[in-house]
Amino acid sequence: MISKQMKEFVANGSAIRAMFEEGKEMAAIYGAENVCDFSLGNPNLPPPDMVKEAIIQILDQEDPTDLHGYMSNSGFLDVREQIAQSINRKYNTSFSNENIIMTVGAAGGLNVVFKTLLDPGDQVMTFAPYFGEYRNYSISFNADFAVVPASIPSFQPNLPEFERMLGPTTKIVMLNTPNNPTGVVYTEETIAGLAEILYRKQEEFGTNIYLVSDEPYRELVYGDIEVPYVTKYYDNTIVVDSYSKSLSLPGERIGYLVIPDAAADSGMILAAANIATRLLGYVNAPSLMQKTVAKCLDAKVDIEYYDRNRQALYNGLTSMGYECTYPDGAFYLWVKSPIEDDGEFVKMAKKYQILLVPGTFFGCPGYARIAYCVLPRTIEVALPKFQALMEEIKEKTL
Amino acid sequence: MISKQMKEFVANGSAIRAMFEEGKEMAAIYGAENVCDFSLGNPNLPPPDMVKEAIIQILDQEDPTDLHGYMSNSGFLDVREQIAQSINRKYNTSFSNENIIMTVGAAGGLNVVFKTLLDPGDQVMTFAPYFGEYRNYSISFNADFAVVPASIPSFQPNLPEFERMLGPTTKIVMLNTPNNPTGVVYTEETIAGLAEILYRKQEEFGTNIYLVSDEPYRELVYGDIEVPYVTKYYDNTIVVDSYSKSLSLPGERIGYLVIPDAAADSGMILAAANIATRLLGYVNAPSLMQKTVAKCLDAKVDIEYYDRNRQALYNGLTSMGYECTYPDGAFYLWVKSPIEDDGEFVKMAKKYQILLVPGTFFGCPGYARIAYCVLPRTIEVALPKFQALMEEIKEKTL
Repeated sequence: MISKQMKEFVANGSAIRAMFEEGKEMAAIYGAENVCDFSLGNPNLPPPDMVKEAIIQILDQEDPTDLHGYMSNSGFLDVREQIAQSINRKYNTSFSNENIIMTVGAAGGLNVVFKTLLDPGDQVMTFAPYFGEYRNYSISFNADFAVVPASIPSFQPNLPEFERMLGPTTKIVMLNTPNNPTGVVYTEETIAGLAEILYRKQEEFGTNIYLVSDEPYRELVYGDIEVPYVTKYYDNTIVVDSYSKSLSLPGERIGYLVIPDAAADSGMILAAANIATRLLGYVNAPSLMQKTVAKCLDAKVDIEYYDRNRQALYNGLTSMGYECTYPDGAFYLWVKSPIEDDGEFVKMAKKYQILLVPGTFFGCPGYARIAYCVLPRTIEVALPKFQALMEEIKEKTL
Repeated sequence: MISKQMKEFVANGSAIRAMFEEGKEMAAIYGAENVCDFSLGNPNLPPPDMVKEAIIQILDQEDPTDLHGYMSNSGFLDVREQIAQSINRKYNTSFSNENIIMTVGAAGGLNVVFKTLLDPGDQVMTFAPYFGEYRNYSISFNADFAVVPASIPSFQPNLPEFERMLGPTTKIVMLNTPNNPTGVVYTEETIAGLAEILYRKQEEFGTNIYLVSDEPYRELVYGDIEVPYVTKYYDNTIVVDSYSKSLSLPGERIGYLVIPDAAADSGMILAAANIATRLLGYVNAPSLMQKTVAKCLDAKVDIEYYDRNRQALYNGLTSMGYECTYPDGAFYLWVKSPIEDDGEFVKMAKKYQILLVPGTFFGCPGYARIAYCVLPRTIEVALPKFQALMEEIKEKTL
């Protein structure tokens, strides 16, 4: 009795759930301390202490009726202005509160953008490997979904292929940098090249193509890596951001959209996005959390922790002969499957109580994703297992 | 460049916004204290003190990584269990955590239900006067929307008309009790009669028709009025509830669905609804607020306050000759327009700095809604204005 579309999602959903539930079953058999679950991109660091302090301060100082009440669907004006100014300070942009729409996390923001822009049959294009929800959201809005094959081994967007594939129905190009699942940060050269192609193709087709930059990992970069701010390279950019990773608040569902004045039809898009939040049933982003993140705009989780995990895993695995993409951001390590079939590789890893996600899930077979938002102890336990796994593979493929 | 559907919403949206913005303009001209804005159904009472205490207690006691982290899309298990048990205690039902899905408010919950159940072309039916978002959500999901004309003067659902209109494509019947905009609580006789018709028609059509009971005002009832719990009368019922009104937390976006085991295909619906929360981008209801409402299940805003407003307005207006529907719940008074054209009546009221919403907005011309979630002072200021308005109308219609 459920809708036809949901029937398919339920069928696929159970396959994914089954994979994740294996972790629980394994823990029951082998003991939780012996299972190395690298499958979930769920922050394992607490939010900065400042978050709790901010919440309590807000509860003490603000009028509770206003604090927990309705505001404009786009969010509290002061919060939006503070976020705009914070972006301006960091990236030398010139946004105001009018360019910001507070959203129920980045996922909520993406739905607002898709609802606002997409007619059935419009095309959404992205680059392999990609976050699987882009595909699901596209199906949900009856859009056509196209994937540009990966550029190996850089895992920067494959620009020649991209240019070839763009067409007159392409309405949205999804960008995700720092990237899930590779941890790769797209370079300035990539972004500029991509913008140049888009400008040219817009001209050719007489259309507007919106570059939707999904950036929940923007604050999670290592060393002195810079993540170019995409609006500076391409006018028709919409930025989707969230505090799920930078402040470890994924359950609170708080993020925002940046819709620049420079984007074509920006006034109409802003008006429609404001209504889309209502129409999708969010109405507005959770009010207390809006006020909270506004007080924590310069705070960040302990990124050194993720960095130590990153180094331990990357160095450990490469020394064993695994081919890994060096991750400049996010908390994922992208490893080449030592055998052709990534599904088989992930299956073999399970025998060692290591849980990975096959690259096929991200539209990029032959690889696997290791989420290192885990206890350092998990990595210590995992390394000898990875070693044994590699030895088994070498033996078999001799 | 926005989607065709959103273009229409933006066009209609500006009409509604224009109405609400008149209030601000009036305040600038006449002074805020002289403008009687009865247009918005926005709780003006603070949440019970318990809410703040609960938040601080949770922040002090719970592990912050878990508290603000992802959980099952359906919500924290303990929260869902506590809500189920609270419903069981109040209504002698037998739900468990498995029947509860936490949602981003009632609006989010309704979107989950619509996304889960509706194929394009399915029919959603409701009873005039109705909350306008039902229509918008139906359009959003490409469903057919049908309205059963009002039963005057009771404003209980018009059951003979309902029976006549139900058809083989009817998938969802929306019920809203206590009702927005009338304040009427549907009686047990109504609910039982409605259930009897639905059972008969399901049999006749060989379909399942889901009764979706939207109940954000359930806790806002006056005197010893009882609001029948709909799942007890009809198996294929899905309850949509929120804490926006009972705890004055509309900005926090926290509510839940009840999907009973007795509903046809309940297992499939639960699985699909769990995925729909992800697909719509909510992912899960805001985590801190989930924990907070679970600690406040027996708390409620100061309903005596709304009751005093109710009495003052009802008694005041009826003594002047206005025909009002006596409201047993919610914070709305439904008044018959003393002239045929409710749009004209609302326009005349504006000359007295009184802001109402015309019944036409709720699919029921000839009436107007007065939201009395306002300061008592606003009602004091308004009554002489209503008197003068009635005198002007009487003079004109002599």
